[in-house]
Amino acid sequence: MFVLSSPSGAGKTTISRLLLEKDNNLEMSISVTTRPRRPNEVEGKDYYFVNQAEFSKMVANNELLECAEVFGNSYGTPEKMVEHALERGRDVLFDIDWQGTQQLAKNRREDLVSIFILPPSMQELERRLHSRGQDSKEVIAGRMAKAANEISNWLAYDYVIVNNDVEESLASVKSILNAERKKRIRQHGLTDFITNLLK
Amino acid sequence: MFVLSSPSGAGKTTISRLLLEKDNNLEMSISVTTRPRRPNEVEGKDYYFVNQAEFSKMVANNELLECAEVFGNSYGTPEKMVEHALERGRDVLFDIDWQGTQQLAKNRREDLVSIFILPPSMQELERRLHSRGQDSKEVIAGRMAKAANEISNWLAYDYVIVNNDVEESLASVKSILNAERKKRIRQHGLTDFITNLLK
Repeated sequence: MFVLSSPSGAGKTTISRLLLEKDNNLEMSISVTTRPRRPNEVEGKDYYFVNQAEFSKMVANNELLECAEVFGNSYGTPEKMVEHALERGRDVLFDIDWQGTQQLAKNRREDLVSIFILPPSMQELERRLHSRGQDSKEVIAGRMAKAANEISNWLAYDYVIVNNDVEESLASVKSILNAERKKRIRQHGLTDFITNLLK
Repeated sequence: MFVLSSPSGAGKTTISRLLLEKDNNLEMSISVTTRPRRPNEVEGKDYYFVNQAEFSKMVANNELLECAEVFGNSYGTPEKMVEHALERGRDVLFDIDWQGTQQLAKNRREDLVSIFILPPSMQELERRLHSRGQDSKEVIAGRMAKAANEISNWLAYDYVIVNNDVEESLASVKSILNAERKKRIRQHGLTDFITNLLK
């Protein structure tokens, strides 16, 4: 379970997309949300879009590994889909904020690797948010305030990458994934392999 | 501090050499040894060659971070040179066995990253030892026995790589180095960077 967090606009979504294109053993965790679908978003690919009643029911049934409210909308990670992917030996990538990360870590600490992506500066972050052309001035002001709050929780993460350059940051994230897969404790076939080796 | 261990012949020396060629922030820890110099070895590059009296004096003066006896010869890591490299912000690579790794870990646990390189099979290991053309049959038999003992201590390591292919294993080691350098706790300038970011 890999968590990639960052303030909105720091480059997380681009890096995730490039990562998933090249890494066949990795899949995105798809969140449920009550947020209205944006024109370019696809149901079941970007999110599962649900209404507030459906969301509340999932919370009540304990079906979410983590959930959060952001700008008045609810977001959550359905446990069933994550379990299903992990059982098939796949790694799962999460695009969640620090509060979600904390909730995941509480439930699944030994499984979790968390990476925080920082913008090179707040000016650059604001510039990127404007250049996306997606949000109003007011929403951007809200995102900048939330960004400062996100960044102040950097100590919750295992790894920190300053995103000066997307290609360089992507290489760093790939290194982290490759390295974590070489950790002794994550290689489940290793005990058998070594028993055989020494036979 | 990166430790790269493996049974003799599993590929550690080749991987270390290739790694050091490309990584400008990494340097090899040079051990002292009482072993006779081999024809292709250079004093101060491969080892510092000392006699038993000089070695014993270093042990008595507590100048070694770790030391071990292998096939009747003594090996050790002089602390002063390691400290000097770390102070200049360099990473140091160690080519030591599991007992040395344990000693280092005891002194400097939070600093240490240990990688164990396994041969794909014992047959392949023996083949590689023969094809080096460096050791007599008896020495090879000794190395094979020591290899089994080394491998049985694989649990002492953070990362494990099965060396089927040198290029692939080299890429894995590079990933581990890059990833470890992105760990929050290893990035000493990060607190200042974030304080500045949020100012």
